[in-house]
Amino acid sequence: MLKSETSLIAWIRQQRTLDPAAVPIPPGDDMAGLNLAGQGLVLVTTDIRLDGVHFRTDSASPRQIGYKAVAVSLSDAAAMASQPRGVVVAVALPRDWSMEQARELTQGLLDAADAYDCPLVGGDVTSWGQPLAINATLISTESGIAAVRRNGAKSGDAIMVTGELGGSLASGRHLTFPPRVREARAIAAAANLHAMIDISDGLSTDLGNICDESGVGASVYADRLPLTATAKTSADPLAAALNDGEDFELCFTCSPEDAERLLRDPPVAVRLTWIGAVTAGCERFLAFPDGRREPLVPRGFEHFR
Amino acid sequence: MLKSETSLIAWIRQQRTLDPAAVPIPPGDDMAGLNLAGQGLVLVTTDIRLDGVHFRTDSASPRQIGYKAVAVSLSDAAAMASQPRGVVVAVALPRDWSMEQARELTQGLLDAADAYDCPLVGGDVTSWGQPLAINATLISTESGIAAVRRNGAKSGDAIMVTGELGGSLASGRHLTFPPRVREARAIAAAANLHAMIDISDGLSTDLGNICDESGVGASVYADRLPLTATAKTSADPLAAALNDGEDFELCFTCSPEDAERLLRDPPVAVRLTWIGAVTAGCERFLAFPDGRREPLVPRGFEHFR
Repeated sequence: MLKSETSLIAWIRQQRTLDPAAVPIPPGDDMAGLNLAGQGLVLVTTDIRLDGVHFRTDSASPRQIGYKAVAVSLSDAAAMASQPRGVVVAVALPRDWSMEQARELTQGLLDAADAYDCPLVGGDVTSWGQPLAINATLISTESGIAAVRRNGAKSGDAIMVTGELGGSLASGRHLTFPPRVREARAIAAAANLHAMIDISDGLSTDLGNICDESGVGASVYADRLPLTATAKTSADPLAAALNDGEDFELCFTCSPEDAERLLRDPPVAVRLTWIGAVTAGCERFLAFPDGRREPLVPRGFEHFR
Repeated sequence: MLKSETSLIAWIRQQRTLDPAAVPIPPGDDMAGLNLAGQGLVLVTTDIRLDGVHFRTDSASPRQIGYKAVAVSLSDAAAMASQPRGVVVAVALPRDWSMEQARELTQGLLDAADAYDCPLVGGDVTSWGQPLAINATLISTESGIAAVRRNGAKSGDAIMVTGELGGSLASGRHLTFPPRVREARAIAAAANLHAMIDISDGLSTDLGNICDESGVGASVYADRLPLTATAKTSADPLAAALNDGEDFELCFTCSPEDAERLLRDPPVAVRLTWIGAVTAGCERFLAFPDGRREPLVPRGFEHFR
């Protein structure tokens, strides 16, 4: 049995040492970065989305599923503060789908592609006697703003998030969320971001990824997490904000001075919240107003569990 | 019911007009070409491969399946005479797979990536309670040789193929074939290729794609098709060469003068065969030595049938 996708990915990353001149951003970020011989950095991300894992064809419409397939890749492009340039999509369609369903799925792909000026430039269509699988691969470029990686967080940094967290699966927001492409670039243009990730697996996991890649710890202020209306009314609002996942908001770190400036004069309409501090060492914990501390355990969505 | 992937793809292509400055090579070729703002042409192809459709996990090893997943994308890069630069792979693993099987699959990806200097730079791993699905997306560049498209075939051109055709599924070659990446670039450097495609769906279908995109017809010399040993001993060798598919050889067109030169002084070790002529109009037919002609009907592999 597969123990976890994380341990498999860690193993895969150990198999080859990539030439940093050819691959300046190796696996471990939201996107890989290729240096195409004097053509600048080209960023690429690929995501496979599966019926019963990332969506359910019995409750989500084909158009929503198509939208989500491209939007998750756009969210990766946002996490690097990069400019999406094109997307290719491959689908394995259930053999009993109608042409109308397949067209609606395509319409969803185009909804996302159009909204973010990221043309659908190619793809692959196959049918099979199994549930829907859909893969999107997105290409982006820096276009004037240096790519923000996961590995630059520094002790003393402020930890910030966009929007509100939690309850995305329960509310259905995971099918309709707006990837923070423009917000990421506006924030990165206004402040010196040290690290950034999009919150797909849950803050506890994704902030943990920043810590892992940067070799730092984190203290998260439990009372300051911005909660969605759905999270607020859930049985455990804090756990919802930390672990539900599929928020597709941004988590980034910057100097406290930059954080203050972003909050004083926000470059974006979306809510920005200072939720914690990067610490030396590698401990990650939740800090409560009464001084109590709890370990921040990655409990976000991991598919193999 | 989905009638065919071809009609769905045709419909998708009608939905948006892409800016030719941003997308110089739109859908319809082996790869799409993006112009990344002064960074030259970046080519991209994506292919999803499915258990029971493109391979069978009960007969192919995980390592063979991994190799094939990347090799089919490398074959697309060959079809454009482009230089592979990096590949990303997303897998939906059956939940009952062992870590060992997942590692063997990865080893197969790396076998292909290593053999063609095309680093595996990223990916996505998810497990689900369904059969294996694996998607590869490959990025390539022109790197000194202009991309060869499908749409440049001219009446009077020679039609050429590399290697031998037919029987790939029966012989197992579809799991071990060498994508013709270096051969394509060597041939394109030695001659002015007007159109090229890799033979994945079968010559009858893929040559038909060149004809469709170029607005031309074709006459294929039935007695000159190069046959694999497996095709020669099959019930209908000619049909095997035309329709079996998964040959992953190259089919290209060039002037008869260039064809003669390529045959006289071959730039590659692989066999080259002059199998027909591009004709005006749009008729495609098989020409037999006795003067008989038969329509060349696309009977290659189409997944929805």
